[in-house]
Order: sequence, then structure tokens, then C-alpha cells
Amino acid sequence: MAAEQDPEGRAAARPLLTDLYQATMALGYWRAGRARDAAEFELFFRRCPFGGAFALAAGLRDCVRFLRAFRLRDADVQFLASVLLPDTDPAFFEHLRSLDCSEVTVRALPEGSLAFPGVPLLQVSGPLLVVQLLETPLLCLVSYASLVATNAARLRLIAGPEKRLLEMGLRRAQGPDGGLTASTYSYLGGFDSSSNVLAGQLRGVPVAGTLAHSFVTSFSGSEVPPDPMLAPAAGEGPGVDLAAKAQVWLEHVCAHLGLGVQEPHPGERAAFVAYALAFPRAFQGLLDSYSVRRSGLPNFLAVALALGELGYRAVGVRLDSGDLLQQAQEIRKVFRAAAAQFQVPWLESVPIAVSNNIDEEALARLAQELVAVGGQPRMKLTEDPEKQTLPGSKAAFRLLGSDGSLLMDVLQLAEEPAPQAGQELRVWPPGAQEPCTVRPAQVEPLLRLCLQQGQLCEPLPSLAESRALVQLSLSQLSPEHRRLQSPAQYQVVLSERLQALVNSLHARASP
Amino acid sequence: MAAEQDPEGRAAARPLLTDLYQATMALGYWRAGRARDAAEFELFFRRCPFGGAFALAAGLRDCVRFLRAFRLRDADVQFLASVLLPDTDPAFFEHLRSLDCSEVTVRALPEGSLAFPGVPLLQVSGPLLVVQLLETPLLCLVSYASLVATNAARLRLIAGPEKRLLEMGLRRAQGPDGGLTASTYSYLGGFDSSSNVLAGQLRGVPVAGTLAHSFVTSFSGSEVPPDPMLAPAAGEGPGVDLAAKAQVWLEHVCAHLGLGVQEPHPGERAAFVAYALAFPRAFQGLLDSYSVRRSGLPNFLAVALALGELGYRAVGVRLDSGDLLQQAQEIRKVFRAAAAQFQVPWLESVPIAVSNNIDEEALARLAQELVAVGGQPRMKLTEDPEKQTLPGSKAAFRLLGSDGSLLMDVLQLAEEPAPQAGQELRVWPPGAQEPCTVRPAQVEPLLRLCLQQGQLCEPLPSLAESRALVQLSLSQLSPEHRRLQSPAQYQVVLSERLQALVNSLHARASP
Repeated sequence: MAAEQDPEGRAAARPLLTDLYQATMALGYWRAGRARDAAEFELFFRRCPFGGAFALAAGLRDCVRFLRAFRLRDADVQFLASVLLPDTDPAFFEHLRSLDCSEVTVRALPEGSLAFPGVPLLQVSGPLLVVQLLETPLLCLVSYASLVATNAARLRLIAGPEKRLLEMGLRRAQGPDGGLTASTYSYLGGFDSSSNVLAGQLRGVPVAGTLAHSFVTSFSGSEVPPDPMLAPAAGEGPGVDLAAKAQVWLEHVCAHLGLGVQEPHPGERAAFVAYALAFPRAFQGLLDSYSVRRSGLPNFLAVALALGELGYRAVGVRLDSGDLLQQAQEIRKVFRAAAAQFQVPWLESVPIAVSNNIDEEALARLAQELVAVGGQPRMKLTEDPEKQTLPGSKAAFRLLGSDGSLLMDVLQLAEEPAPQAGQELRVWPPGAQEPCTVRPAQVEPLLRLCLQQGQLCEPLPSLAESRALVQLSLSQLSPEHRRLQSPAQYQVVLSERLQALVNSLHARASP
Repeated sequence: MAAEQDPEGRAAARPLLTDLYQATMALGYWRAGRARDAAEFELFFRRCPFGGAFALAAGLRDCVRFLRAFRLRDADVQFLASVLLPDTDPAFFEHLRSLDCSEVTVRALPEGSLAFPGVPLLQVSGPLLVVQLLETPLLCLVSYASLVATNAARLRLIAGPEKRLLEMGLRRAQGPDGGLTASTYSYLGGFDSSSNVLAGQLRGVPVAGTLAHSFVTSFSGSEVPPDPMLAPAAGEGPGVDLAAKAQVWLEHVCAHLGLGVQEPHPGERAAFVAYALAFPRAFQGLLDSYSVRRSGLPNFLAVALALGELGYRAVGVRLDSGDLLQQAQEIRKVFRAAAAQFQVPWLESVPIAVSNNIDEEALARLAQELVAVGGQPRMKLTEDPEKQTLPGSKAAFRLLGSDGSLLMDVLQLAEEPAPQAGQELRVWPPGAQEPCTVRPAQVEPLLRLCLQQGQLCEPLPSLAESRALVQLSLSQLSPEHRRLQSPAQYQVVLSERLQALVNSLHARASP
């Protein structure tokens, strides 16, 4: 994996990526003399997306990058001045020019850890005016990242740990950066790679890809490559005209499959030969540009067997339309028979990849049979913006059983002592009439101090490290909470003191 | 409206924002000696989104910006080299370094014009290798932009021409640029403004916004503003303590409404006063932080009447929860009664804005009653990637009746003569067994030459000009095609020669 690099910092969000009402409210606070009041806000969600019982916290690295670079440039302040009323006090704009995050403190769920409804993903505190300006960009950076990571984790759960999952949704993404974000967080959530090259360059996501139908159909078969010769894989011995060699193999293959030698499309074969000349060690055949059975499959076998003679092994085939499962099963049979017929055992296990609108349901069906699938996460933002929030600054803990499984998350007031392992604790499940007691074998504090007065408290994990944490976190979740359809709800409970505060506020609000 | 500016060009997509298979295919073409073969591809969609019968072409400006800046930097080429196989011919990378769009020609539907299934939004021609690298980024730039613009145009059709539509979806957008794109193209499609400040700064979208619940709830009522005095609107005469003045009015208002003077929340009133001190000419009350009837409304009236005494008029109220229509109707009644009671006629017509999950259905209900609504487009990409495309380079024409209404679009081979106004034409509707004849009163060529050999052929229209074209285009569409639910399908027909070519290819493909 390449290192993450973004020398121009272009991937970072900018300070003006905010709603205007944040700026008008900032002026309101400033005019009211409250710009430097201590303030805190929390980002969280109310319902898990996709009908599941868990979500994954993601986007923290982008938030930290954004916060550390946060500074309104002259052009930004001038633009805000042009939008606000002309008689706005110039001292307000001077104040904006001086803003940065040097007094901002952030606590957060670690990137890639499990997140449950109501538990803050991010707690941001600092002077009221600056904290207000940060709210929209941080929401924007966290909510979509968490959604995509959660979606990817669900697809990984369906596929199991061994299948290769390739994300290739860029064409349908919400604009350039929508695509960059989706590729990055699909990887974090459990995909193996992305087709998005920029995600590789800027974020270090492993990239993968071979060829599309347009490549295949752009060849008629009459093209003459400038250099048709391919040297053997071992590098020794004379080169071979790959097209001619494939033509010889085509006759054997067609005889074996009971096809006329003129049936497979010559343009498709020329495309396969051209691709194999460029990528002899990474030849993959896209089988469904014409007919899979009468053209794609025999052409692939002809080129793969020709490459095989030179010591190269084809890396796979791909299907992109039709009944993927049924075709894949038929292809596997053909590979087995051809491996026996031509005495090339490796042909038996050539990977079959499938793509095209693979959702959770289709993946569940496919995962039983196949080795690699290319998914495209559906991106649906289901977090509900919170309109009534729990009061006060909170702390959050995860309680675990003696076998390391997750019992519940506890929200409490920041000033309360932390729950202790092995000690009984009285907590309020949501909507309960009475508290219940729990005795956790382990207690984990959930919110880690990430940025203190603008300073990074510990190095951020790499994308790959966070990706590993996702899989570790999911393994701690019990099967009934991990289930993707109709899961048991994971409990997020309140401490007695927090519940009492909520009750007293409710009583005050309903006279 | 501010001018569009992006001095760092950061809003432009970058060359590596592409799928890796485009790069691997490029190497395949290069190895096959076909890098400079003449090639053309078209971007189009198969089905209109949202169940409608039309879409809007959008994203062309971003495409042109991308194409004109297209150039692989050294770091880009090095990254590709690190991803491809180590024994890749270095001459390929030299070729990549030399690439630009100086031989690329683009024809396109004008930004903001109507687009129908099968009619190309973009035709891109040039050397095969470079054209292949452009496909993914152009798809990414066009499809989401067109989708958002179409969605916005539908909401505008529902709302009618007079209502103010404000887009504020940034918090839920697909990452930073997903939000920038959505805000820009919501405006193009017919929204009046966006809350996204960056869209204002970079794209010249009018921005708007006032305050959110967090502002209101952050005040307890015990705050003392450093300067509570507000000068009269006319600028003459002594300033007045706005908080004290609002307190006096509160007693009148509560007496009028039959409420106790202690019922309205003092923190909400302090927030309104603070906001009014900062924006005396743009005071808007967000009414639903506590109780609309018992708190938000009397507090708004108290502050608005205090401002009114100083010669300022409140610009409106906003509701963000609950039954928006019913509450709005009740508020209008209260405004009318208060206007009569306190003899301030302008109060009668204070605009009522609503927001919160407004989709097409909710908007249709609201549009009958209200003046301004804040929408959040649902973003669902429904274009189907094309797997079987019509052959050959095509031209497209729009046929109009004598009253200027749209009859149908015609696709034909590029080399055919254009249809002539007043002359009979034989065309094939999709799936028809026989051709039909049509005699258009006017004929418009649809695809405009936009970039020729890398050179811009005519200045691009501004975002606001394209926005005006959207409304003009929609006005030409007949009501049965413009209808949002179960519309009549607009016909896209083939010329006789194109139909014959399709038939011959079908015959060849099915032996």
C-alpha cells in the first residue's frame, strides 16, 4: 500500500464549507458578547443505517486534518463580508481573521470502532464562536464516512473474510470528492481495494482494475500490433507471437467445447491478446461483451492457454451482466473440464469475479460460490439530525462480559466516576420504568482525547490500522447484534444521574 | 451574485480521478499500437430519474474546466508506475507525461437544456488512449450534476415560480465536494439559494441562512449583551435598549394571545434579541426550539414589534419540525390578528419559511400555502450504465411544432443531412414495427460544438444564464411530459438509416 500523501492539502475540507447560518449565528454570538463563551457540541446519530444494530465511527482523520488547518484566509473573510450586511462591525471580521483551533478540544470514538445510537462519535469543545463554525464541516466529514464504512463492513460480513471485495462506484458518486470519500471509507470498512486511482494516490487505498467492455468492443480483429511477440515468463528462450499461438489454441478449445472456430468474436480475442501483451502476468478476461459461452469463454481459454505455454497464469475472468451466479457455476464446470482435457491443473481454480449492481442480497447469494466480487455501496444517509439532545457534557463507556463480548454502552455525566470492572452498576435502559443492574467484567472508556487545545494528543492510526480495528471490533459483537436483518438492538443506557437530569428537564419543559 | 472564482483551481477534478481499469486499458491500447487511433464515446442515460419523463443536462462547465486543465503531473505518472507492473515499458509513461486534451473535441447538450433517454449529453472524440482516460471523470462530473439539477427542477415545478427555495443539504452530503456539487446544481436547476458558503465563494451561488436551534438554546436569558442599544433604521435619533423594549412588547403580546408573561422562554427571547442586534434588517425567528405557540411566536412578535418601532421590519419566521402546514396556517392567523390589534399592517404578511425533510410530496402540499421552503434534494443516481450502445457517431435534433412545443428528438448518423423544417421525415420510434412520418415546424440541432481540438469554441454561459435556460426549456415541454408522476414518455426516435444499421448489427450478432 502506498503511503498517504496530499502535498497540496487539497483533500482537506475548507473553512467556508459551512452553512451560512453558522456564520450569521457567529455574528449573533459576537454581537451578544458571547464569542468566547465555553461551548461543546456532540455529533451522534439516532438510528443505525441499513436496518442494522451497529455503525462504524469513521471520518475522524479528515476532521483532525480539517481542524489543524482551520484558518480563514483574507479571501474567505472578504467573501463573508460581501454576504453579510454592509454595516456589519468590521471588528467582527478582524475576530474571524484571528480564529484557529488552538483552543479547541476534541474527544472521539477511535476511527473504525463500533458506534451505537446516542453515543457521541465526536465531542467538540472550545470558544462558542469557533465551535459553531466547525459544526457543519465536521458533520459533513463524519456522517458520510461512517455511513460508507458501515455499508462496507456489512458487505464484508456477508462475503466472509476470504473473498476479495473491490469498490468501483466512482462513476456514480456524488461528484469528485464524493467518490474519493466513498473509496477511502469502503476500504476502511472492509473492502480490499478500489478502482479509484486518486484514492490510491491521496489516501493510500490499494487500487485494482483490469478492463471494461469498451476495450473489448474497440477491437475488430483486424488490428496488427506493432510487436506481437511475448517473451516467456522465465525470461529465457525466444519470444512467441501470442496472437498466432492463441489462434492455434482456439481450434483445440472450440473442438473441446463443440463450437465452430469462427463463432468466437475475433475482435474480443484481439482485445484479450492486446491486454495479455500489456499484462502477461495479470491477464483477466471480461467475458460478457458478446456471448459468454460462445465467445468470451473460448477466447479467454485460447489466450490463457497460450499464455500458459509461456509460463504465465491468467489471474481470472469477470462477468458483468446477466445471472451472475448461474453463469459462474457453468464457467467453473468448463474450467474443470478444460483443465483435465488440456492437462493444465491451474485452470481449474482460475478466479471468477462478478460485478454489476451487487447489493447485500445479491452478495449473500454469490458469496457461497465465488472468490471475488466487485461491489458498489449504496449510499443512503439515514442519520437523523438530532433536535432534542441529552443535556450536559457526557462520558461514554463500553461494558464487556468476562468472555470479551460487548454488553452495553453507558452514557453518564462527564463529572461522574467511571464504572469499575467487577462492580455492580445501576443503569437506565431507554424507556425503562426502573433501573437495572449490571456487573461488567471489563470497562472501556469510549471517547478518546484526540485534540487538546488544538494539539494532537497521540498519532492518528493509519487507514490500514483503522481498517484492522473494524474487523476486530466486529468480532467482539455478539451474533444477534451483528446480524444484518432484524438484529437485536444493542443497548445504550444512561447512568442514574444522567437519567435524573433528563427527568428534571422534562418536568421543567412540561408545566 | 458573486462572480465565480477558484483561484487555486481546487474545484476542478484531477486526472487521476479515474478508475484504474482506464489506465490499464490505456496501457493495453498503447501496447497494441492503438494509442492514437481515432475514438469517440458518448455519455447518456437510459431512464429518466425520479419517475419523470425529462432530465436536465448539467456538469458541462466542470467537464470543460477539467478537460482544459487535463495534464498528468510527474507525481501522477509516478503513482501510476507504482501501481502497474514493474516491467512496464517506460515509453508508456513518457507518453502519459505528454498527454493533454489538445486533440480532444467535445459536443454537448447546452448546460441546462432538456435531456432525454438515449440522446447523448456529451460526445467526446480524440485519440483513443486519452479519450479512455477521460471517461470516468466525465461520467462522474455529468451524472451527479444532471441528477441534482433535475431534482431541483422538479421541486421548482411543484413550488411554482414565485416561492423561494433554499437548499441546505450540506450536512448530509457525500463528503465535502458532494456538497459543493449538490449546492451548485440545485441552484442551476431552479433553487434560489444555498446555505453552503463555499458554493457561494467558488461558484457564485447566492447564499442564505439565519440561525439554527443551537443558537436559540445556547441562551438562558441571563446573558447581558455588551451593547444592548440599537439605533433607529433611519439612522437618526437616539438608540434604544432592544431587550427592554422587547420586554415591554411581550406584555402586550401575551395579553393579546391570552398567555402568561412568564410562559415564553426567556433564553429564546434573549437569542432573538441577540440575533436582531446583529441583523436588525434581517431578523428571522426560528419558532420551534421550545413551544411554537406559547414561546416562539410571542417571543418573535415581541422582538419584531420592538424592531418595528425603530423602523426595522422582520424578514420572517421559520418552522423546522412538526406538521409544517398546519402550524403555518395557524401562525398566519396570529399574524393577521396581531397586525390588526397593534396596527402594524406589515406584520400580516411576514413570510413563513419551513424546512425539515421536504420531499416532492410534502412540497406539493406546502406550496399551496407558503412563501418560502427550504428543501434538501434526495440524491439517488438512477442512470443505468449503458452496456449496449447505438453504433456509430451520431447527431441529434429536436423537432418542434408550429407553436414552439417539443415534438420529439431524432438520433441519426453524423453523416446524414439534418432534418429540414417544414419537410416530412420518416423516423422509427423505439420498438415500432413501422416507421412514422413527422413534419416539424422547427428543427434544432442538439449537440453544440463545445471544445474543438482542445480549444473552447464559444464562451461558456454563466451559472445564472444556464439556470435561466432551465426554466425556458421546461416551459417548452408539454404538460403531459412535464408532469412529475406517470408522465407521458417523450419520444426519442431513430432515423431510417440509423435504424437500418441497428437492424443489420442485430442480425449479425444473432446467427
